[in-house]
Amino acid sequence: MTASSHPLDRTGLQVIPGPECLELLASVPVGRVGFVDAGEVTILPVNHVVHGRTVVFRSAAGAKLATADRRSLVAFEVDRLDEDERTGWSVLIRGRAEEVEPHQLPTTITDRADLPWADGAPKDHWIRIRALEITGRRVAH
Amino acid sequence: MTASSHPLDRTGLQVIPGPECLELLASVPVGRVGFVDAGEVTILPVNHVVHGRTVVFRSAAGAKLATADRRSLVAFEVDRLDEDERTGWSVLIRGRAEEVEPHQLPTTITDRADLPWADGAPKDHWIRIRALEITGRRVAH
Repeated sequence: MTASSHPLDRTGLQVIPGPECLELLASVPVGRVGFVDAGEVTILPVNHVVHGRTVVFRSAAGAKLATADRRSLVAFEVDRLDEDERTGWSVLIRGRAEEVEPHQLPTTITDRADLPWADGAPKDHWIRIRALEITGRRVAH
Repeated sequence: MTASSHPLDRTGLQVIPGPECLELLASVPVGRVGFVDAGEVTILPVNHVVHGRTVVFRSAAGAKLATADRRSLVAFEVDRLDEDERTGWSVLIRGRAEEVEPHQLPTTITDRADLPWADGAPKDHWIRIRALEITGRRVAH
């Protein structure tokens, strides 16, 4: 499907179909998890992997994990932008975050050495976001 | 100041001082605004400019604007990541969003032709986020 065959939303952005959103989500190594922490919205970048319709990342004990403990609704966003062309796309997942044990995940995920990038502190907790909604938009000229 | 002289947070990330956070915030053309919309966290990329301790962007009528109408607390995140080196930085602002009239902004902002990238629909509304808190983190090896 070519970009031009995509419908536009009311703000003039191209609507990316769901299956393509999942492909794009898996095509970049870092996304941004958004959640409400002590009544305030927080956005933090994390290295993620995609497994079916879930997003998985590692976390140290702290705010991100606390959110997962409460099985909160969170957002997860990825994008890729071309600053010269002023084009790009973004994909947004809304879903519920939860901590999972490593044995609940395939070893193709838990054996990966590239999670996380930061090596300053142990990130022993695995967080999974199950997507309830996946949407994507593209800017093209 | 060299990166190595920055203190680390409890997760092992380097803490970026406030003035450097503001410089980094202005060094990239796109950030991501996070807000609560109908009880759910949403993250959307927007082209922004920095003016003092405020972030300004344009919006069509819709969810982003509705948030500004309520003068909600929102988050605004920018980052720059090097996927090969597995390094990067991110800056997070928390603040209150509000719609402003163009005459309340300097013409150096309102005359810019690069806001927004998307040209499919008029984005007649100017949104300003006043930073109440600015934090930044860096991954370095």
